[in-house]
Amino acid sequence: MNLAEPLQAGDRRALAKAITLVESTRADHREQADALLTTLMPATGRALRLGISGVPGVGKSTFIEALGVFLIEQGHRVAVLAVDPSSSLSGGAILGDKTRMEKLSMDTRAFIRPSPSSGTLGGVAEKTREALLLCEAAGYDVVIVETVGVGQSETAVAGMTDLYLLLQLPNAGDDLQAIKKGVMELADLVVINKADLDDQAATRAQAQITSALRLLPTHAHATQRVLKVSALKADGIAPVWAALTALRAEREASGAWAARRREQSLAWMWERIQAGLRQAFTAHPAVQAQLDAATVAVRDGRTPPSTAARQLLAAFRTSP
Amino acid sequence: MNLAEPLQAGDRRALAKAITLVESTRADHREQADALLTTLMPATGRALRLGISGVPGVGKSTFIEALGVFLIEQGHRVAVLAVDPSSSLSGGAILGDKTRMEKLSMDTRAFIRPSPSSGTLGGVAEKTREALLLCEAAGYDVVIVETVGVGQSETAVAGMTDLYLLLQLPNAGDDLQAIKKGVMELADLVVINKADLDDQAATRAQAQITSALRLLPTHAHATQRVLKVSALKADGIAPVWAALTALRAEREASGAWAARRREQSLAWMWERIQAGLRQAFTAHPAVQAQLDAATVAVRDGRTPPSTAARQLLAAFRTSP
Repeated sequence: MNLAEPLQAGDRRALAKAITLVESTRADHREQADALLTTLMPATGRALRLGISGVPGVGKSTFIEALGVFLIEQGHRVAVLAVDPSSSLSGGAILGDKTRMEKLSMDTRAFIRPSPSSGTLGGVAEKTREALLLCEAAGYDVVIVETVGVGQSETAVAGMTDLYLLLQLPNAGDDLQAIKKGVMELADLVVINKADLDDQAATRAQAQITSALRLLPTHAHATQRVLKVSALKADGIAPVWAALTALRAEREASGAWAARRREQSLAWMWERIQAGLRQAFTAHPAVQAQLDAATVAVRDGRTPPSTAARQLLAAFRTSP
Repeated sequence: MNLAEPLQAGDRRALAKAITLVESTRADHREQADALLTTLMPATGRALRLGISGVPGVGKSTFIEALGVFLIEQGHRVAVLAVDPSSSLSGGAILGDKTRMEKLSMDTRAFIRPSPSSGTLGGVAEKTREALLLCEAAGYDVVIVETVGVGQSETAVAGMTDLYLLLQLPNAGDDLQAIKKGVMELADLVVINKADLDDQAATRAQAQITSALRLLPTHAHATQRVLKVSALKADGIAPVWAALTALRAEREASGAWAARRREQSLAWMWERIQAGLRQAFTAHPAVQAQLDAATVAVRDGRTPPSTAARQLLAAFRTSP
């Protein structure tokens, strides 16, 4: 099955099949997926990778629809992916839902894919990262990765995108919650949605968040980076895109753009190595023979944790 | 060299030697240390383990001296350890400094040990955790582990103690900084020091931090948990100790105290396993032969990070 050629030619079914392939857990699929990704690597890396998050009810789908339609009208091709570690619990992907992005999902210049619905955040993020590379190879020049504020999913999405946009509701208090969770610190741009409902509240939130951002060492010059929009009325979308492209130009000129991508790639590699090592460790027969007893002895305070770790590591070093 | 007996009999030199043994990186010392720790395990676990942190200048040493002297007068035996990941840079331990705790360091009912000065935070924390067990076996019933706000050292200290006390200066703005860093969330008790300098400011800080704490889901009932003291005048120390012992009684009754210790021990074991696995991985000849090339290929976008991880893990699985 040759997917690389039709995928690069813009065949949407080939792209969908390729994403299904990287999402598969079958060993032979995994080998095919690795080969496909390696073939396509030279065609990747040219998109703007944009992370978007916000609490449920902030209007993520409406905002992504408005931004996506705006971008398509400007001649871009837009892919929307999602990282939703809760979808395996809820029994289905709640993000990247086509029915919630009516116009975008019907446009052939857009490609929408719900979150892979299996396993841990690490596993879900891994598959989304690979899907992102496939979308780039298929010629999409803006790839949006959305997530909801569940667990550490914001950090995972910020770790795979070039720019990270945080959607906020126009009410006070929200800003502190986001600071507390450390999400604000990840944001390159904060966008206050639903300004149509109460423009005064949105303006107040804009001022509050701007001053809260100034406290963060990474956001000393935050003035330009809090905007308000009405996604429902598609109002304020152009300034958001202008701010994002200005940030891109600034960081490409300074080298920070390329440096961030290099760091992300290496961090991704090491994350997968750590996960693989842990998997090999717990699957090792000599470790399996000792792990339960060691766990109980450590839990009950009979064996020092560091001693148990050294003994288990010694068992791991024996041949299986 | 039998250290277990004199150590348990309260010989301070034996305790100091035992800590030096666990701090050693020599393989034969490590074996002796493991044997000693395993022998002593039944004698551990009976102390109150108290973490204390605060920014430089907050008066940590003065506070620990005041609290330590108070406890000794009540009949307790107090050990003071430190986690200072910066000490390897600054060329010496800046914490647990005996010269900064004059009274406590001259009292035979107290034992003060500076931070181990080598290596990563993980390594420093590991040695302090083991020293803590040794102090317990030596009969110290309050073990204080102090740290300065460097890197993730607060999290490491909170992860090895029963109760975590955050020292704060009586000026506004500090509270937000601590919330931002997530340190406030770790604190079981917040103590505003230097109330003698400006009692009104301390009272204001108390109110501010109390309302900030209420925003944190883990601190819904924070009212009783922000106190003000003057460590210099040894003023307000008894209420701090009363709050700590009340928290202990409450959590021992609910089972949370023992549960926290069990979780800490297992987390510690897995942390050391992960570190050991990574060390074994990077030391493996087949991995070493490929790692540099793989790193460059990933950094330059020629190999997908997940593919490189899988190839390196396959190399690791071959016999050395």
